[in-house]
Amino acid sequence: MPRRPNYDKDDLILRARDLFWRQGWAGTSLKDLEKTLSLNPGSIYAAFGSKDALYGLALDRYVHDGATSLDRMAQEIGPLATLQTYPRAILENDKAAARACMLAKTYMELSPQNHALADQAHAHLVTMETKFEALFAAAQSSGQIASDHNPNQLAQRYQSDLLGLRVSAERPDFDAIKTADDIAQGLARL
Amino acid sequence: MPRRPNYDKDDLILRARDLFWRQGWAGTSLKDLEKTLSLNPGSIYAAFGSKDALYGLALDRYVHDGATSLDRMAQEIGPLATLQTYPRAILENDKAAARACMLAKTYMELSPQNHALADQAHAHLVTMETKFEALFAAAQSSGQIASDHNPNQLAQRYQSDLLGLRVSAERPDFDAIKTADDIAQGLARL
Repeated sequence: MPRRPNYDKDDLILRARDLFWRQGWAGTSLKDLEKTLSLNPGSIYAAFGSKDALYGLALDRYVHDGATSLDRMAQEIGPLATLQTYPRAILENDKAAARACMLAKTYMELSPQNHALADQAHAHLVTMETKFEALFAAAQSSGQIASDHNPNQLAQRYQSDLLGLRVSAERPDFDAIKTADDIAQGLARL
Repeated sequence: MPRRPNYDKDDLILRARDLFWRQGWAGTSLKDLEKTLSLNPGSIYAAFGSKDALYGLALDRYVHDGATSLDRMAQEIGPLATLQTYPRAILENDKAAARACMLAKTYMELSPQNHALADQAHAHLVTMETKFEALFAAAQSSGQIASDHNPNQLAQRYQSDLLGLRVSAERPDFDAIKTADDIAQGLARL
């Protein structure tokens, strides 16, 4: 009977996610992974197959958590308030490994190499855009936003502003909360 | 008398800039540099000292060109029209090596390592923010934008949106021109 490994795979993926999210793909060495996961290279490969496979699981976990928190917020406070609150909620999440979006960072770093992880990050960006679009459409249906806007264009502009906010929020001299509030106020005028 | 090298240093910096801009710092190997500059490693080191020193010159050139084109535009069409036209002009620049901003890409990649090039990219982001702020202040002085806005906050929001636009514009399925026009129209309502 194979011995059961004495680690929690979900917990390892979370720790790897935070490391990759902060340091990027090239910026994370196998040594970094060994240290953060407290595993030797053999155990990392036995558990996950490769650094890229682990990165892929980390990306999936990242978008799963983001999508889940967005969905939960939408059920609690409705579509427009969710779109208005989400930027600030991201900034105020103390558990986040970085302010910048892991999907955007991955796509920026790896799409020039046509890396499969860039395609995966892109697919997840589309997943989030589709969720934002559904929220804009719901806000239009309930009369919170004027119906003459194209919800896909609203979602693209919103996601673009959010990515910019999150890149800028890495700067110590950037007033991210003010900009998040600006984005929220702009939505109220649609 | 030392032999004069048979290359144009400015041209080499431009070619290195485009390579670094597209591929990033870790994504650019010495082999890539050798191929793009048509120089052997010894000549690259003799001319520039190190990969990081060449990257630093490339960053300086990048922001010099961006600032010069912004200044020229402002002299020709005035502050508000410049702020409105600049996002679209960036997207429509066929000579650009990438849509995403090299300063933001560098800062994202290298600030987690506390790399000196991240500090340099950050200083250049501040240079551009200061230019945007001066344009907003000038647009307020000439009555094109209401005077009750803080020009620094306007500049931070504008630069943040621009960075988001440029990240998003790397996606093949993103309507970047529409978003650039949205940004321009938003400024007209200030």
